[in-house]
Amino acid sequence: MTIPPRYLSGDAASIQEFLAKFDVFLFDCDGVLWSGDHVFPGTVETLELLRSSGKQVVFVTNNSTKSRADYKKKLEALGIPSTTEEIFSSSYSASIYISRILQLPANKRKVFVIGETGIEQELRSENVPFIGGTDAAFRRDITPEDYKALAAGDSSLLDPEVGVVLVGLDFHINYLKLALAFHYVRRGAVFLATNIDSTLPNSGSLFPGAGSMSAPLIMMLGQEPVSLGKPNQAMMDAIEGKFNFDRSRTCMVGDRVNTDIKFGLEGKLGGTLGVLTGVSSKDDFVAGPIRPMAYLDKLSDLLEGSKSRVAGNEL
Amino acid sequence: MTIPPRYLSGDAASIQEFLAKFDVFLFDCDGVLWSGDHVFPGTVETLELLRSSGKQVVFVTNNSTKSRADYKKKLEALGIPSTTEEIFSSSYSASIYISRILQLPANKRKVFVIGETGIEQELRSENVPFIGGTDAAFRRDITPEDYKALAAGDSSLLDPEVGVVLVGLDFHINYLKLALAFHYVRRGAVFLATNIDSTLPNSGSLFPGAGSMSAPLIMMLGQEPVSLGKPNQAMMDAIEGKFNFDRSRTCMVGDRVNTDIKFGLEGKLGGTLGVLTGVSSKDDFVAGPIRPMAYLDKLSDLLEGSKSRVAGNEL
Repeated sequence: MTIPPRYLSGDAASIQEFLAKFDVFLFDCDGVLWSGDHVFPGTVETLELLRSSGKQVVFVTNNSTKSRADYKKKLEALGIPSTTEEIFSSSYSASIYISRILQLPANKRKVFVIGETGIEQELRSENVPFIGGTDAAFRRDITPEDYKALAAGDSSLLDPEVGVVLVGLDFHINYLKLALAFHYVRRGAVFLATNIDSTLPNSGSLFPGAGSMSAPLIMMLGQEPVSLGKPNQAMMDAIEGKFNFDRSRTCMVGDRVNTDIKFGLEGKLGGTLGVLTGVSSKDDFVAGPIRPMAYLDKLSDLLEGSKSRVAGNEL
Repeated sequence: MTIPPRYLSGDAASIQEFLAKFDVFLFDCDGVLWSGDHVFPGTVETLELLRSSGKQVVFVTNNSTKSRADYKKKLEALGIPSTTEEIFSSSYSASIYISRILQLPANKRKVFVIGETGIEQELRSENVPFIGGTDAAFRRDITPEDYKALAAGDSSLLDPEVGVVLVGLDFHINYLKLALAFHYVRRGAVFLATNIDSTLPNSGSLFPGAGSMSAPLIMMLGQEPVSLGKPNQAMMDAIEGKFNFDRSRTCMVGDRVNTDIKFGLEGKLGGTLGVLTGVSSKDDFVAGPIRPMAYLDKLSDLLEGSKSRVAGNEL
């Protein structure tokens, strides 16, 4: 990682050369395609250029509260055409990981969910049975009987088929859910998290993120969950499990070195592309410990690659 | 800490000599005086021996859900006579710390509480104003309006007089309370915890403890709270603020090296006494990194010191 990244903005020939190396582009969204509710100019055209050049586009998001269908609606509301197949969320990532990668015994296939409807929809899409989640039966206070039942491992409260605890962002987190998750993991369930971002951006400020739901369990158990979000490679494995792409022909595009670029580098992708419209600075890209292969002022600078096609270069 | 601790059980002369060194005995409770609902034989008589010899007895507990008055009732229900003045809980410790040690500006004296009635009662006893706690107004879902109000620092939701966030065990923890606590600390409030025990024993098993309530905030803020429970010395300072004892004439009695004994050693007390009726083993006491000055098989072995008083020794 001592090679300085190549600055591509304004260099049509280099852009064409760069694009020609890849068949698949994985996109971080906030900070790359838009910021908050503001879509960056040229986002739609850039995605269209890639698609029309035969590239596979994948939107990779750590947001676990939305299903892929929900996220597609969000993209459409922002004016960005997309298909559900192009979307890869941490809730979907977790579902793929549970259904296709984890080898669970036949009597331990059920998931106890801390999280919202996005997780439930994606577990259903992979035919993974689950309890918890948005079920109103878990939105109640703990009782003296619950303590005794949990301590005794009573099946009236602890479903013996639960083999996985999956923790995502849950706006209805409570003491009972935390106690149940703790006891399931202590009894042998696999501890997974959709993602471990400590905060969630909203209204220009920060709020508790999915990582904050795992934090009490991490402290109690002395154990970290396997995270199915960026930059954890379990998410890359899940993406590969779905798309069967050639990693050497895949490029991760993002604004943050410690999540997006790290995700691509550790996944041994053929390329990583940083953009300066989000969190990381030019200094981070050029002189930091984690550096992309190339970077741009803004994503839409890729359009320059098509405006003046240099002879001999194929996108 | 390389001196091996002295084993006192069965050695009446050494017990008398040991007891004569101290005027004040600080007691951990569970694992020393009782275990669960079972009071160890001789507990009451041992406490009575100390009191009748003119020693001050203080029960030091990290339990924040109970006030001193509640805890006295618990002791009485177990058959252990006590006075409220002899009890020092982490909720009282926190109240003392806020009212007598923290120097808060006049317009920042209010406390936002995550916790139960024990904390509220003790804050009232020290005339500390507070919001949150058991107030039903905070037991609700977060709304889109809340995000905007919190991001804007709106005084309809964020009380401008709040200068302290105090986090204890809260059986009604929720997303809104965590978001409020996070925003108060980000805006400058002092971050305190009654204690940071990750788990709470109940029914022979473990459940989320007060530390699990602070865990999301620690992750989000990248900041640890000042803990007012053992082994943190802020609790020792609070005990000293109340009793004005001579540390060199005070002994901490406990079953756990990493909380009780550490608490006494770091507080530079004249003595520490381990008992083998709880968590730590003889090996921990004799060969571990944290060792008490002396240890006993069980607390009631101190009674031997009175049965056969050795000439010249004064308790």
